[in-house]
Amino acid sequence: MGYPHEQNLEKEYRDTAIIATALCHSDAHILHPKFTKALFPVILGHEGAGIVESVGPGVTNCKPGDKVIPLYMPQCKKCKFCLSPLTNFCAKLSQFKDPIIQQEVMEDKTSRFTCKGKPVYHFLGTSTFSQYTVVSDTNLAKIDDDANLERVCLLGCGFSTGYGAAINTAKVTPGSTCAIFGLGGVGLSALIGCKVAGASRIIAVDINSEKFAKAKALGATDCLNPRDLQKPVQEVIIDMTGGGVDFALDCAGGSEAMKAALDCTTVGWGSCTLIGVAIGDKGLTVSPIEILMGRTINGTLFGGCKGRDSIPKLVTDYKNKKFNLDALVTHTLPFDKINEAFDLMHQGKSIRTVLTF
Amino acid sequence: MGYPHEQNLEKEYRDTAIIATALCHSDAHILHPKFTKALFPVILGHEGAGIVESVGPGVTNCKPGDKVIPLYMPQCKKCKFCLSPLTNFCAKLSQFKDPIIQQEVMEDKTSRFTCKGKPVYHFLGTSTFSQYTVVSDTNLAKIDDDANLERVCLLGCGFSTGYGAAINTAKVTPGSTCAIFGLGGVGLSALIGCKVAGASRIIAVDINSEKFAKAKALGATDCLNPRDLQKPVQEVIIDMTGGGVDFALDCAGGSEAMKAALDCTTVGWGSCTLIGVAIGDKGLTVSPIEILMGRTINGTLFGGCKGRDSIPKLVTDYKNKKFNLDALVTHTLPFDKINEAFDLMHQGKSIRTVLTF
Repeated sequence: MGYPHEQNLEKEYRDTAIIATALCHSDAHILHPKFTKALFPVILGHEGAGIVESVGPGVTNCKPGDKVIPLYMPQCKKCKFCLSPLTNFCAKLSQFKDPIIQQEVMEDKTSRFTCKGKPVYHFLGTSTFSQYTVVSDTNLAKIDDDANLERVCLLGCGFSTGYGAAINTAKVTPGSTCAIFGLGGVGLSALIGCKVAGASRIIAVDINSEKFAKAKALGATDCLNPRDLQKPVQEVIIDMTGGGVDFALDCAGGSEAMKAALDCTTVGWGSCTLIGVAIGDKGLTVSPIEILMGRTINGTLFGGCKGRDSIPKLVTDYKNKKFNLDALVTHTLPFDKINEAFDLMHQGKSIRTVLTF
Repeated sequence: MGYPHEQNLEKEYRDTAIIATALCHSDAHILHPKFTKALFPVILGHEGAGIVESVGPGVTNCKPGDKVIPLYMPQCKKCKFCLSPLTNFCAKLSQFKDPIIQQEVMEDKTSRFTCKGKPVYHFLGTSTFSQYTVVSDTNLAKIDDDANLERVCLLGCGFSTGYGAAINTAKVTPGSTCAIFGLGGVGLSALIGCKVAGASRIIAVDINSEKFAKAKALGATDCLNPRDLQKPVQEVIIDMTGGGVDFALDCAGGSEAMKAALDCTTVGWGSCTLIGVAIGDKGLTVSPIEILMGRTINGTLFGGCKGRDSIPKLVTDYKNKKFNLDALVTHTLPFDKINEAFDLMHQGKSIRTVLTF
């Protein structure tokens, strides 16, 4: 790794040894032919956990030996967004329209990675598919010393995104009815969030019925495969619930799933939370009368979690068995089998594969 | 008027003498060639105020001589919606997809109006373009005896819809920045709501610059005509506010205005409230990333007001000068000049014309 501008390294974690990293669909999106905005060569990976190896000058909130989770959503703690309780957004991201493609370089506009003398780009400010990475101090959460890194690495993206969307964004209420579209790592985490929030009925929807056993184990009361139904899934849900659910969470992405999620919510107070993004998506077309009948559409990145504040608490919650992360880890492989892990993900056979170094 | 099913008249106000009624665009929508779902012949009008002439058997919450405002949004006070603080929706409406076209008949599925022996349909359960009308007890708010009916008739729709959307739905906060699209009766009422809620900056948008003087008098800090701008109005608003407004309220309807309203809100916590509906509208197409960046889309009918509870309080608030209804009444005409009133509305020359009997 190169350090081209030593004077700019203040407040930068120099090296973090990654102990475990999981894969997320966003890592695959960047490789998708329709996704033309990414910069290459790049070190992908953004759902990891590790141990601080060394820190740049001026860094005080972390020291070598600390267990940490890199954060793709920075928290500078100084901007108007970080100072507001209403959002986990940070001004460090605000000059960009699409947060999926940014933080490819450090604040000084250069990379810390090189290969054969040429620069290699960062990914989402994290780049966890690497034995060592460099992240800014705004992008790192210090966690408990006894944290199990092979599990809490999931808090770096998928779990926090789904669970946080249910708790922080949808604000699922006790006794409510919920529908979850898409039962991958994010969807199952949203399901866990709905369950922890006290939902009385959780309808889980996926086009892959093999996901249903795990969904039921985690608290789904009903499972629906739209391909097995005689009419649109939203109509089935409206019938099942006598008018629609209180909360729908779309973790699938894509126009069809988003539309079904909005349509299956009740008039009066139905809340539709968008979490998933599908590449090449045509968007969600909303008829204003659907909204005027009292529905709300909202959404967040990273489950509304202010990373440096929230992630350490979630690590402690996991330790205290408030929720079950273990169920989401279906495979553990050595890092050099990363391509096998991508295959498992694309085939829908894994929820999360944890790669270890 | 005929009373074909005397046994069903329990809990029905038999006759209400309408003293004053205003016009609203929804009265014109029903006449629009693109609006094919309406039933004719019909007595239109839904923004009125009057005095109870007689009541059906069993009616106890109102008596002859009481001043009242007919409500197009019923409040039965018994259904799960009426019992929830989250909505002003009522189950009486829930079997219908489009609340604009319902309540054409009374609960017994017949009309109380006839002309030359043939039935004439009700409109929105109110039909205020009539010297006498018949409404259900779920659709009538008793108001203060000293209420000025030539002003508070506006609370029957336009004022409550706009003001309530700002207060109850958007929940505009003190010191916030707001943008209002469309400066008709609803838009100016939303503007009044933003001002009462303590907004520090209110940007008023309309394609008719003649609306701006009144908007400024009511509290707008800036006025924009998209046709006079070199770039899209949402970009101008983002520049003016350093990133977008906290609250946008679309009172214009139509894909373009709704899109501008959503786009001009800030990342992090921007709230876009939909109020207007344009006939033949193509809807609002939302890119999920706009929502994932922390924006919310919401909306209501009748400003989220539970009519029988809220409208009497608004009448008292007007009496106590909490807001200025008088500014919205630009014309007062005798009822037989109703076609002149429609012309004034279509020409954009009136905010509200009050018709008196």
